[in-house]
Formats: sequence, structure tokens, C-alpha cells
Amino acid sequence: MSNKAELEKKCIDTIRFLAADAIEKAKSGHPGMPMGAAAAAFTLWTRHLKHNPKNPQWPDRDRFVLSAGHASMLLYALLHLTGYDLTLDDIKNFRQWGSRTPGHPEYKHAPGVEVTTGPLGQGLANAIGMAIAEAHLAARFNREGEKLVDHFTYVMASDGDIMEGVAAEACALAGHLRLGKLIVLYDDNKVTLAGAASLSSTENTEQRFKAYGWQVQKVADGNDISAIDRAIKKAKKDTERPSLICVQSTIGFGSPCKQGKCDAHGSPLGADELQKTKDALCWTADSTFYVAEDVSKLFRKALSRGKKSEKQWQDTLNTCRQKENVLAAEFERSIKGDLPDNWESALSEFPNGSKDVATRKAGEIVMQAIASKVPELMGGSADLNPSTFTWLKGMGDFQSPVLSQEGLHGMVGGSWDYTGRNIHFGIREHAMGSITVGMALHGGIIPYTATFLTFADYMRPPMRLAALMRLRAIFVFTHDSIGVGEDGPTHQPVEQIMNLRQVPNMTVIRPADANETLEAWEIAISNTSGPTTLVFSRQNLPVLDRSVCSAASGARRGGYILWESASNPELILISTGSEVSLTLTASRKIAENGTKVRVVSLPSWEIFDRQTQEYRDSVLPPSITARIAVEAGIKLGWEHYVGLQGMIIGMETFGASAPGPVLYEKFGFTVENIMATAKELLHRA
Amino acid sequence: MSNKAELEKKCIDTIRFLAADAIEKAKSGHPGMPMGAAAAAFTLWTRHLKHNPKNPQWPDRDRFVLSAGHASMLLYALLHLTGYDLTLDDIKNFRQWGSRTPGHPEYKHAPGVEVTTGPLGQGLANAIGMAIAEAHLAARFNREGEKLVDHFTYVMASDGDIMEGVAAEACALAGHLRLGKLIVLYDDNKVTLAGAASLSSTENTEQRFKAYGWQVQKVADGNDISAIDRAIKKAKKDTERPSLICVQSTIGFGSPCKQGKCDAHGSPLGADELQKTKDALCWTADSTFYVAEDVSKLFRKALSRGKKSEKQWQDTLNTCRQKENVLAAEFERSIKGDLPDNWESALSEFPNGSKDVATRKAGEIVMQAIASKVPELMGGSADLNPSTFTWLKGMGDFQSPVLSQEGLHGMVGGSWDYTGRNIHFGIREHAMGSITVGMALHGGIIPYTATFLTFADYMRPPMRLAALMRLRAIFVFTHDSIGVGEDGPTHQPVEQIMNLRQVPNMTVIRPADANETLEAWEIAISNTSGPTTLVFSRQNLPVLDRSVCSAASGARRGGYILWESASNPELILISTGSEVSLTLTASRKIAENGTKVRVVSLPSWEIFDRQTQEYRDSVLPPSITARIAVEAGIKLGWEHYVGLQGMIIGMETFGASAPGPVLYEKFGFTVENIMATAKELLHRA
Repeated sequence: MSNKAELEKKCIDTIRFLAADAIEKAKSGHPGMPMGAAAAAFTLWTRHLKHNPKNPQWPDRDRFVLSAGHASMLLYALLHLTGYDLTLDDIKNFRQWGSRTPGHPEYKHAPGVEVTTGPLGQGLANAIGMAIAEAHLAARFNREGEKLVDHFTYVMASDGDIMEGVAAEACALAGHLRLGKLIVLYDDNKVTLAGAASLSSTENTEQRFKAYGWQVQKVADGNDISAIDRAIKKAKKDTERPSLICVQSTIGFGSPCKQGKCDAHGSPLGADELQKTKDALCWTADSTFYVAEDVSKLFRKALSRGKKSEKQWQDTLNTCRQKENVLAAEFERSIKGDLPDNWESALSEFPNGSKDVATRKAGEIVMQAIASKVPELMGGSADLNPSTFTWLKGMGDFQSPVLSQEGLHGMVGGSWDYTGRNIHFGIREHAMGSITVGMALHGGIIPYTATFLTFADYMRPPMRLAALMRLRAIFVFTHDSIGVGEDGPTHQPVEQIMNLRQVPNMTVIRPADANETLEAWEIAISNTSGPTTLVFSRQNLPVLDRSVCSAASGARRGGYILWESASNPELILISTGSEVSLTLTASRKIAENGTKVRVVSLPSWEIFDRQTQEYRDSVLPPSITARIAVEAGIKLGWEHYVGLQGMIIGMETFGASAPGPVLYEKFGFTVENIMATAKELLHRA
Repeated sequence: MSNKAELEKKCIDTIRFLAADAIEKAKSGHPGMPMGAAAAAFTLWTRHLKHNPKNPQWPDRDRFVLSAGHASMLLYALLHLTGYDLTLDDIKNFRQWGSRTPGHPEYKHAPGVEVTTGPLGQGLANAIGMAIAEAHLAARFNREGEKLVDHFTYVMASDGDIMEGVAAEACALAGHLRLGKLIVLYDDNKVTLAGAASLSSTENTEQRFKAYGWQVQKVADGNDISAIDRAIKKAKKDTERPSLICVQSTIGFGSPCKQGKCDAHGSPLGADELQKTKDALCWTADSTFYVAEDVSKLFRKALSRGKKSEKQWQDTLNTCRQKENVLAAEFERSIKGDLPDNWESALSEFPNGSKDVATRKAGEIVMQAIASKVPELMGGSADLNPSTFTWLKGMGDFQSPVLSQEGLHGMVGGSWDYTGRNIHFGIREHAMGSITVGMALHGGIIPYTATFLTFADYMRPPMRLAALMRLRAIFVFTHDSIGVGEDGPTHQPVEQIMNLRQVPNMTVIRPADANETLEAWEIAISNTSGPTTLVFSRQNLPVLDRSVCSAASGARRGGYILWESASNPELILISTGSEVSLTLTASRKIAENGTKVRVVSLPSWEIFDRQTQEYRDSVLPPSITARIAVEAGIKLGWEHYVGLQGMIIGMETFGASAPGPVLYEKFGFTVENIMATAKELLHRA
């Protein structure tokens, strides 16, 4: 073995044993993949990855996504070794309270962690979102000879990632979109948590990815640095197809008793076996967490390389600032995440007397206005544009120019290349969500999704991750209740709104009319502390008369007194979305009958609950316990506002197939039922 | 055109116009696919499908799944025409309140509707569950020359079904399992709701399915009955591979202005266009909903064919009853859905003084006992057997015998063929759920799934459908809280338990200890009115001392008084699962300090809420408003029991990575915090 080869082996073994030692110390973790995939990771990180450990936020860095998040120690080892601000003490603190090295990589916990991963399939799909962002921003900001955006997105994925449906959806789309700068290293170790991968999968994965339109390569020996290097080079050269490199590795490589077995996957090797592994790999260090000086030196070349790369890019940016200062400023603003000045200027209120309009339709009007001022707003629907009304008019299709050359083209006009801001996700809700997470993570883009609310169930995993990471992503859902009508219970959300309210860091807004819709979009686009879910009606709704009702700006506080017949009411009706106008009508009649009544519009529980106690008590005075909630969704949860003394007009069952107005009547969403309920409650009190 | 060909065309056009007329009358619906796929459906239903319209419950009928549920009128037309109890009046009542012909096919609304479909991808994955059930029951019950179970499972799927990740997962598994009696007719019309399918998909679908191990055929003209017929014949002959037949059709076939366009997909054609379509197809009937006598006669041959087929099968069953009466009786019992006599006999309580045990572990002990007595209990996990403990010991792997011959075999011993009761779903939670729905629908099997609770998010769509259809399916989830520990927030459920409680018809049970786990499994296995979700801890829990506490049988009522220091308490603590023993410990200390306190264990909200008012008031007397809920899940929802005057010790954020006991302390699940909360509440009251 040459000196160089020996040093490289030592570097790779250093990754392996940093991982194994940390897992041993924590008595918890997954050594199998860090040990099996160490050579591939080493090759990528020392020979290809463009990054600057001293500036993990450098916008044009290559993105590295460890989709197999359970191999977190692989990533932490690489971050430490290449010079990120992650110390050996951090690594020794693996999986402990408050540490920067949690069990699975968590975004913002350590520098260089691009994304929180762990739930399988997500990271790979997130990476496709990053590659989409890169392609779009490159198309938007690069000029001949001056490339502000020009990076690869690398993924390390496992068998689990490859099996998950979300990855299948996302990879099919990546092939369609010809995302040539996406390179996936598939740690093909043929072993999963519970046994041989062949217990559940004997597909021809290479053929499958070829069917998606990918370049596919195989590396027969996961420790063959040269072969891995060649494959990555070849992958980089193919700029019109995403690349899959199947690296056939051995899980838990080096462990005499556990390598190649599922025992190596998710538990510490054990002190004895770890020592035997060190012996087997001729690892002579007598301390744990050992990093030799020559090893450190090799890895830390990343620092000088990174500095140089970023310097070149800074030069480009400076040139651009001189030659195209508007463009450069726009690039910097987008990346920073600031909104353009006067972005609200295109927005206008829906005047009193406007004719009835569905909030999905009002949402369309508002988002078109925002899109005209906020060029980073980009997204699409899961094949539902004609129903969700979320098409950005005149903003073009995000499609590969190659496809265009082949004669395929959009059906609605506009550009058909990577400058387009409308993504056709296909009938792939789950990937849509995960890709959106990746776009938000990349930066430079405010992404949105759209589908029917009932199909939120298909995309809950990425919505949860967006919330966990507090990403600025906007999830638009239309057809938000039994108001859907004839399509029936499969298409009628019942439990979804309340379900989403229970996701930490998620802001859910269900506006009552066009003007609350305007407020909702303003809140969503400005929300930098987490994702926003916008919930819109299919059916037309009155535009509330704000000369009689309070201003819709009350929605900014989550909930507000919409109308009341007297300032000291004896009954409060609380409602959201499409049921607010109904509740208002009923309340007027209740008032006519002599009861002092207040109507509270409560479009966002999360925002309302964040208001001061004083404000909340002014809207819902604790002394007034006669409260009725009205929402065409599941009742369970509404006790949060009406307690055990109030009443709830909501759903307890699934919906049914019939025209929407019939369903509203059958399920009790009528003026009469609200009045009767009020009577019962007041009588009881 | 021959007379025969002419009549066949008339039959096909009859399907088309029954669909189009019904949609026109309802002013709502999806004419595109019924019109485009009518010829393929006609070919399948008149030349291949083994069914008896007079007995839709005949166990050995071929299963037909319209995965593209939006084409419901295609199915209703076929059911009506072939002689099911579905009248023209039913069809005229399409999509109306209370009708048997809802917008999407709904299980149990009309005879012959095998499954509720609409959410794309689900039906196809459900069908794979049916094919698994068929293969298993065939292996179990068939004897040389006497086949009690021998049917095909047919699917009609659309572009959307093919794009969805759940279908990708399920189809990969179907290929692995070599489900040769599964035949999918893919209505390859290249148009989706929002435009050309090529806007989002340019994959090579044929190659993809070949990669899964499927037989793949193409029919170039969707109206070519002979070619479709030949393809189905060839598909039936290949008994070692599932089959995909790509039938290239024209959406909205016949409509001069709309065929081949997305306009035909989801809206009525309009009176003018419908008339033009009738003209274009030389349809001369002057009334709507027209069925000519010769057309009816041809379709209704299904009645005599069906009668004959079922008779042959009945003869087989009778022979079997004579020769193997135990086997026959067992078959009939399983299909009927009755449990074996004395199925509970293998169960035994965990005695007082048993050592601490995780409910996932107690669940394993209980399910093994049940499995030994209930041979129809069959299922598996998404690659998590070593963690979920849901492996049925000694019950074999459900695998294709072909793979076994090829040298692949299980890692844990036991049989390795279709008699096996352990399914390796792979890392495919979504497909696992949908396949389970299909198995439950098929009959003869009580299916279960298992994964970590946080990954319930991956399988919400099929769980919802199981609830909507009220299927007997058991969803086991372990690792049910921050108690997961080091794996961190991605793997720690927070909102999932409450989310699932909000699904109508779903019974969620979170047992407090081993004995409540026993009760939970008994409830689950006996529950024939909907699915049951079992939620188990990763961490060890005390086996509650039932000589001091009430009997665990109280769990059968959903919630019960577990212990109290006095019969007229001033404070009630309500808890579930792993927090019950903690709450109990704290309550004893609270009692020692002189407060009269009651502890309520509430493993199932749904069951408790179904009890009489009297019982519920005896457990939670309305007069006692000093109530504290303790659950390591999201707080929102608990006001259902504690109102606005009580307090909740629960989660408001995501979890974190650290050892479980540390997390319990950091997030306030401690004796001290419960005591302090009680003090605060009583002070406030």
C-alpha cells in the first residue's frame, strides 16, 4: 500500500472509529452505516464537495444531505474532521440533552447540517427540492461567464430511502426535470434493520432508476476510493440527468462478528466487539476518539480549498455587483430571505359589496398579486391547478429546457424552462411536501404547495419536518370541508384541520372571507418562524360587510370580535372559515330574539394563543362560559375554547356524497340549528 | 363490422353514455375515464371476470378494484348492466344524498363495490393486499384437486395511481412476492386533471414495472377488444409475476371537442357536447340512460356464468366438507369473520409482582398467545420487527416459494412460502397500511401492521380509509412518546395520538401496563366495527398492583377509576399509557399530604365516550372540576376531559435527543411537577 493509500485508509478508519466510539459512549446509535459508507463519504468530502467549513452559510456551497439520518455520526465525524465548528467534545456528547450532536442530524443544531433527517425517504426528496432551487436560481441569476449559483447537491441514501414511496415519487420527478446536478450515493449494503434487504426487496433498482431517466452506475466495492471517485466524476459530467451511484458496501465494515449483518445497524458494537474491530482494521490508537495529526491535516485541506472556492465566488459576486447591480442586490436579498420593499403594494382589500367568492378564489387573486412583487414565491400543486387556483399566471413552467427541445411543452403558455416558477409536481403529494422542504432549506425561494385538504394526510411527514425545522414554507389546501360536496367522504376533510393545529410550530389559518384570506396570505409570506398552512373553501362565501363587522386586520391576532349585538354579551359564538358568515347570520337572529351575543372569528388558533392574556380575555372573557363553536370539522379539540360548559357544532363522523348545501343542512350547519343550540345552551346555563 | 362487433360496440357505448348521462344529470362527476376505459372494462367484465352478480359475497369471486375511484360511473354502469342489485334509478341518483351511487365508490353502499376508492394509489395497493390474502388462503386451504381459494385480483388504475408513491411501494413488494394472480389494467390515457401527464411524468413506466419483476404488456388501442382480451389471457397465464397491461386509451373517447383533453376529466361534458358525442358515436337512442335489450342480454350472461361458477365452487366446498371437514369448517369460519371458540384461552394475566415490562413487550407476549389460537391473524412490520416485537413466532415468512427455490430464505427459520403469516413489508409504511386494508377487505384474515408511532404519519391515508370502511384491521405502534429517548424528535411522536383520536370510527388504545395491554389486544381482535390503533411504550413500565388498583378489565369501558384515596375526591388525575404509573405515584404523595385524590386510567377515549352518561359521570363527576391530565403527547385536545378549569401536563413542543428518563424530567413528567401542578390547581380553585 502506498503512503497515500495508507493515509487514506487511516482517514476512513478515523471516521469509522469516531462514529463507533461515540455510539459506544452514548450506549445508543447506529454504527453500521458510518462504518460501511465511510470510504464513499471520505471520497466525496475530500475530493469533490465544494464547501467552506468556516462559512457553512456560503450560498453557493454544494449541498450534502445525509438522507439516512441514523448514520448521523458519519456526518458529525466529517464536520469535525474537515474543520467545522464542531469539537471532539461535541462528538463525545452524542445523543445527550442539549448537545449539538443529537441522535439524528438536526438542522441548526450544528453547522453544516443542511437538513434534519431520520424519517426515511425524506432527505432524498428534500435534496431534489434543493436541486430544483439551484436550477431555478441559476437560471434566474447566472449570466454568461458569471455564475452566482452553480453547485451540486449530493445525497447519501440507504436501502430504506430507496424503498420509501416518497423517494420514488421525488426521483421520478427529478428524472423528468433532468436535474443533472443531483448526485445520489446509494449505500447499497443489502441489509436493513430487521434482516437482509432481500426479505422485502428483490427489485432491479438500477433498472428502476434508468426508467426514471437517471444515469446509473455501480461501484462493486464500497472501499474502492478510485472507483467511487471515477463514478462521481462521471456523474458530475452528465448535466442532463440526475445520477445514482450504487455503492456496494458492507454494513458495519470491519466488525468481525457483526459486519454484513443487521446486528450492526442500530446498536453499539459493544466494548469487546469494538476492540476486535479495531484490531481487525489494525487500528492501534490506544485512546478512543483518536484523530492522528496526518489524518487531521488531510481532512483540513477542506479549509484552504473552501476559502479559495468561496473567494472565487465572491469575486464573481463583486463583478456582478458592478456590472448588474440590480441583479446582484436581488440575489442577495432573496438569499437573505428578506422580502422586497413594498411587496404589499400590489395588494388591495375586497371592498364591501363585493360578490360572493370562494376563499380559494380570493386566495388566487391575492397570491397573484404577491407573486408579481415577490419573485421568490415559487411552487405548484399535485395536479390540481384548475381546482386549487394556485397557478402563478405568466410566471412560466419550471421544466427542463431539454424536454422543450424534444417537443414537449406546457399547455398554458409562458416560458418552459428552469426560469419558470410553476412546478408540476404530478400526482405526488408526499414528494411535493418534501421537495418544498428542500427548496425552503436551500434558500432564495419561498416555496408553496397546493392540494385538497383531505390529501394533507399524504404529506404529513414533510409538513412535520418543516415545522420541526421552522422553515418558511406555505402549504395551501383548498376544498376544506364537507363543502366539497359530491366527491364524498374520501375527498372531504373532517379531522385534518384539528390534526394540523396539533403540530408544534405550525401556523394554521382558515380565513372566513376574501379579506381574511388577504390577511392570511400576508401572515404566511411574512412568517419566518415556521411553516404556514392556509385552508380555503371550495364554495363561494360572502365578503363580510366590514362597515358592520370589525376590520379583517383582526385576523393578524389570530382571533377577534367580528361583531356583537352588545358589548356585554351573554353568549359567544366562535367560528372559522366558511362557517363564520353562517354563524353571523344566526347570531343576528339570536340577537333579534333578545339575547346579547358576540361573534368571534378565529382563523388561527396558534396566533391567537400567542396573544397577551389581556387580549385573549377581551375576546373571550373567562366569565362568559356560554360559548358555542361552529366549524365544519371534527369537534374534538374545540373544548380548548368552549370548555365543558359550552357546545360545539361540528362533525363527529365522516362526510357523505351530495351537493354541498345539502350536506351543510344534513350535518347541522344551518341558522336554525345554531339558533336551537344557543337556546339549549342558555336554557341549560 | 360483424353483428357481434357491432353489438359489442353498442355495449361499450352503453357504458359510456350511462356514465355521461348520470354525470350530466348530477351536474358533477368525471366522464373522461368511464368513456376512455369502457372497452377495457367491457372486455374484462364480459370475458374474464369470475363473479356472480346475485351473490356479491361469494368468497372465491375475482376481486375487481377500480383504483381510479373518480371513474365510479364506470363501475356503477358495469354493476347495473351485469345484474347486480343496482337499478337505473340508483344510477339516476348519482352523487345525491343517501344514494347507493356516491361520487366515489363506497364500500357497502352498493353490492359489488369491493372497496372505497378515490384517494389515488390506494386502490392499487389495496388490491395487492387482496392478492396477498388470496395467495395465503390458497396455500392454507387448497388441497390437491380441490381449490377453495383460486381467484384473480383485477385493478383498473389511472396515471395518478401509477404516480403515487404508495403504489410504487406496493407494486415493488408485489413483484418481490411474485403475486401472479394480480392483473392491473393501466388506463394509459396520458392526460391528468391539470393537463398532459407529460407535464410531470416522462418516466418509462413499462421499464419501471419490469424492474419490479412484473410482466408488462402494452395495448396500443384502448378500443381494441381482441388485443385487450389477448393481453388479459397472457397475464392470467403468468402465475409467477404480477401483470401490468398498459392500455393506451383516449380520455373522454367520442367527445368531439373534449376527447384527449383534461377538460374531459372531471366535469360533465355539457348538454351540447354530450349530444355531439352521441352523434359522433352514432348513438341513436332518443332517451337518456338507455340500455338496449340486446345489450342487456349480453351483459346479463354474467348471471348464468356466475351461477355456474359458484355452483362448481360450492361442489368443491361440499367435497371438502366431506373429506376434510375440519379444514372446511375452519375456512368457513375465517371467511365469516368469527373468531375460533376459546380463542382467549391462551391468554393469561400478568400477576401482581411481575417485573417491569414495556407495553410493546407485553404486547408481544399477548399477540403470540392470540396468534396461536387465531390462525387468521397475519401481518408484519415496516422493517422493525426487532423493535416493535410483532413477529409471530414459528408462523413462517409470507414469501414466494419461487424465491425460496432461488436460494433466498428467511433469517429466522420457519416456513418460507405463502403459508407464512409474517409479511416483510420493507421500509414502506404507506403500502403496509394500504395492503392491510386490502387484506381486511378480502376476508379470511385479521391483518395487523407495526411501526413506530411517529411513522403513523406515513400511513394516515389508508388508516383513514380503514376507518371510513369500518374494517377490522389492527395498527400497532410502538415507541409512543418522548420515551423513545436518544433517537430524538424525528422519532418521537407528539401529536400523533391525539391526531388519531380525531379520526372517526378509529379506536385508539394506549394501555398503562401489561394487563391493560392484554385488554387492549382483546378489544382489538374482537372489534368488528372499525380499525383499532394500539399504542405501546418503548420503555419498561411497572405492572400495576391490582390488589391495590382496580382490575385492568376496567379498560374495556375505555376509562376507569384506577385508584383513589377517598370515594369523594376533590381532585382527579387522568392519564394514559406510560404516564399512568407516574401519575399514580404522584397521587399517592398528594393523598399523603391530605388531598382526597382519584386516578383515572383512560386508555381509550372512543370507548369511554361511548359508555352511558351514568358511567362516565361516575368516573368523572361533573361537580369535580379540579382535574389534571397527564400524557406525554400534545396538550391540545385534553380540554375534552379537563375543560378550561383543569390543567394539562403534556407536550407543547417537539421532543429532543437524550436518554428517555432525562426527557421525562426536562419536559415535566415527574412526580414533583405533578404534585406542584395539583397544588397550583387546588390553590386556584
